[in-house]
Amino acid sequence: MELWYTEKQTPNHGITSKIKRTLHHEQTEFQKLDIIETEQFGNMMVLDGMVMTTDQDEFVYHEMITHIAMNTHPNPRNVLVVGGGDGGAIREVLRYPSVEKAVLAEIDGKVIEAAQNYFPKIAGSLTDARVDIQVTDGIQYIAENKNKFDVILVDSTEPIGPAIGLFQKPFYEGIAEALKEDGIMVAQTESPWFNRDLIRQVFQDISQVFPITRLYTASIPTYPSGLWSFTIGSKKYDPLKVDEEKLISPLGTRYYHPGIHRSVFQLPIFVQELLTGKGE
Amino acid sequence: MELWYTEKQTPNHGITSKIKRTLHHEQTEFQKLDIIETEQFGNMMVLDGMVMTTDQDEFVYHEMITHIAMNTHPNPRNVLVVGGGDGGAIREVLRYPSVEKAVLAEIDGKVIEAAQNYFPKIAGSLTDARVDIQVTDGIQYIAENKNKFDVILVDSTEPIGPAIGLFQKPFYEGIAEALKEDGIMVAQTESPWFNRDLIRQVFQDISQVFPITRLYTASIPTYPSGLWSFTIGSKKYDPLKVDEEKLISPLGTRYYHPGIHRSVFQLPIFVQELLTGKGE
Repeated sequence: MELWYTEKQTPNHGITSKIKRTLHHEQTEFQKLDIIETEQFGNMMVLDGMVMTTDQDEFVYHEMITHIAMNTHPNPRNVLVVGGGDGGAIREVLRYPSVEKAVLAEIDGKVIEAAQNYFPKIAGSLTDARVDIQVTDGIQYIAENKNKFDVILVDSTEPIGPAIGLFQKPFYEGIAEALKEDGIMVAQTESPWFNRDLIRQVFQDISQVFPITRLYTASIPTYPSGLWSFTIGSKKYDPLKVDEEKLISPLGTRYYHPGIHRSVFQLPIFVQELLTGKGE
Repeated sequence: MELWYTEKQTPNHGITSKIKRTLHHEQTEFQKLDIIETEQFGNMMVLDGMVMTTDQDEFVYHEMITHIAMNTHPNPRNVLVVGGGDGGAIREVLRYPSVEKAVLAEIDGKVIEAAQNYFPKIAGSLTDARVDIQVTDGIQYIAENKNKFDVILVDSTEPIGPAIGLFQKPFYEGIAEALKEDGIMVAQTESPWFNRDLIRQVFQDISQVFPITRLYTASIPTYPSGLWSFTIGSKKYDPLKVDEEKLISPLGTRYYHPGIHRSVFQLPIFVQELLTGKGE
């Protein structure tokens, strides 16, 4: 018998991946959580029928949601990850010696548990002494912690289910208040092929809250279209104006290095155009 | 009834895409040729069961196999495309006013016919007066045309079936002889995720034939892993040393612009490492 995991990433297109076995299935308080072992990408976490992370390509997403902002801020000491229960973004945050505290605000404790059981290389850093795990609603946590963080990473699921509020302007306003006066945020913002309206809306919302707004991309094979976008909102530091000499080379990365820090902002024309609605 | 096209891009992973209807099927002298109409990507050409091009994302591949080399050469007049029967690379080549002649050496005339019937926006330029269509074996054509071209683009199918010879060192030696003394070549060289040994071998082969060898990538959703590589061999001009002021902005492109001319060579670490075999 052959088992294949098939995900309709849009109503009309998707990926299919051969699996060795199913490892875990549960309905948590917030979402359906599945762990499967695939032949191509190793263990795969699936939330509400969508790939969240896999052993083989997780490094792209986790490095790229983290290092652009972390390396733009000159001295990130307090960092918050909203969502990101698998622990991958926290692992990348901890590569910076300046970090004193890294808070994980994940709404679904079952995601953290599953990551610790099935993705030890991703979740391993969650036991680090600098990590403070808060199983709570990120929106509420932000509201209760003002003027506190140097960097906030919004490592959310898709904009349906529990993460809807994480793609709305009031949330970005809350993040701005939770950041210090020179703080910087980044959010994962979906595919430039399949989510053009969403990216445009988020970019507009963030640019109304932060003086510096930037979009960049990375290539992630198990995510829809293979091309993924991230949006930065920054109060003071512009990732494009960082002195390349001062960039840290985080040890152990496999995608990010200082040489790509600026190049990832060089967007293909069709991605530039989605920000303005041109070419739609 | 729902029809889905499913392609195993590797033995264990692939894409699946809903189709409106099948438009064409034939066994040519060289390969199986299918045209289907998909919901997500418009018309799709499939050769031997692998996506070659689609209406929606063809621009990425065709622009990116063409403009880096064309814009690196200061005055490309004679250009050869090996393979590329759909005409997309020729269309991009003709965006340069310097071009006097663009030869298409495609082994399978049925691919050209099908492109003209089902992909008018891709194949439309094949009727341009500067285009010389040669339905012939590219390897043979190269051997018969020495010291003739400024730029040669190797727009091949996968390295199985009719295209095997296009991924081997003697072919690159032949290309070097078919190029003028300041000529430049580029070849499509598959996915950095799924074809690491192939890319490494081709890079080594080309670097033994050309003094300047460079690898760059582009994001193509319907190709395996969504990340695609191209390898440049150049006798004189280095794409990384081109004066950005002198780069042409080809009219009508949707991916390429002079701003990404250098940034696409900034490779993620895991792609850099495949060239040396490190991290395997």
